[in-house]
Amino acid sequence: MIVDPSSQPPLHIYKLLVGSVVPRPIAFVSTISPEGINNLAPFSFFNAVCADPPTVLFCPNQRNPIKDTLANVRAMGEFVINIVSEEIAEKMNVCAGDYPAGIDEFQVSGLTPVPSGLVKPPRVLEAHVNMECKVTQIIPIGDNPWGGNVVLGEVLRFHIDDAIAHDFRIDPDKLRAVGRMGGNEYTRTRDRFEMIRPVV
Amino acid sequence: MIVDPSSQPPLHIYKLLVGSVVPRPIAFVSTISPEGINNLAPFSFFNAVCADPPTVLFCPNQRNPIKDTLANVRAMGEFVINIVSEEIAEKMNVCAGDYPAGIDEFQVSGLTPVPSGLVKPPRVLEAHVNMECKVTQIIPIGDNPWGGNVVLGEVLRFHIDDAIAHDFRIDPDKLRAVGRMGGNEYTRTRDRFEMIRPVV
Repeated sequence: MIVDPSSQPPLHIYKLLVGSVVPRPIAFVSTISPEGINNLAPFSFFNAVCADPPTVLFCPNQRNPIKDTLANVRAMGEFVINIVSEEIAEKMNVCAGDYPAGIDEFQVSGLTPVPSGLVKPPRVLEAHVNMECKVTQIIPIGDNPWGGNVVLGEVLRFHIDDAIAHDFRIDPDKLRAVGRMGGNEYTRTRDRFEMIRPVV
Repeated sequence: MIVDPSSQPPLHIYKLLVGSVVPRPIAFVSTISPEGINNLAPFSFFNAVCADPPTVLFCPNQRNPIKDTLANVRAMGEFVINIVSEEIAEKMNVCAGDYPAGIDEFQVSGLTPVPSGLVKPPRVLEAHVNMECKVTQIIPIGDNPWGGNVVLGEVLRFHIDDAIAHDFRIDPDKLRAVGRMGGNEYTRTRDRFEMIRPVV
């Protein structure tokens, strides 16, 4: 089947993207508003970019009204990425609801906010990994509700649960990260295999 | 454990990023050089951005000499994303070797190049999904070998294997996508579960 996006509604293209670009890592992003209200929301258009400067990105959409996370990173220039493990997946899903701007998803989900060291938004205590980030660039893509934004951030500080890491190597069986698939589906990361990159 | 990147070598930061930002989708990127030599290489700093304009991104590093993929997208402005399923994972890994610029990884791996419809680089016949893309922006991040580049592309055409999709929904049990973990590890996407986003 050949699909040219120009001849399809954006929903069809969205379904093809979220069904084929899998499995996606989940950025569980905590931010704070200028009024001091915490926000916590998951994004799966997320990845690392490079190690020096230590950079990550995530892509909130252009929906109107804009998501609280996007409003907060624009206004405050800071965010925290919290990594989602199996233990907190259900609480993460609670935070995926479309709550009004005045609602603190830490309270709705029962997750615990802990003050960060270098940025204003709190980190999630129950996450095995937190990355305190400052926004370096926000690049808008398109100008409609199906458009997006590439939010680039520099990691100022990592918090790593000592129980899951040794010598900067994170043990995937202890992290038990959850990935996003299409529709309502998620994948565990227990069913793994190893391949050694060929030496040329 | 608190890790401030400014006090660590980039390798340590890289290990934290690839171990915690998991599972990552894999862009198996085909390009062509100005001399007409095909290239095929996997990148796991990859994701979708938005549906309209249909946009994806991947992040090759700043290594010197630069990777053939980065040289080709700079010179030619086009690439094809091929999605990696379990059936072609080993051949993908063959293409992860650091071959000289004159080498065509289609030939090394035994994967089959098929002409694309709208761009010059060929697509991988054995992949269930191909996305023909034109480069829209290349954003350099940092200026050292551990720095990166955000290559943004607009999807001009999707090729979807009819056997894996119905009504624009891709069946994950038929796609059998492979995700990237830290170190030499990969994850299958068979061990899934469902969570319904709460209606607020």
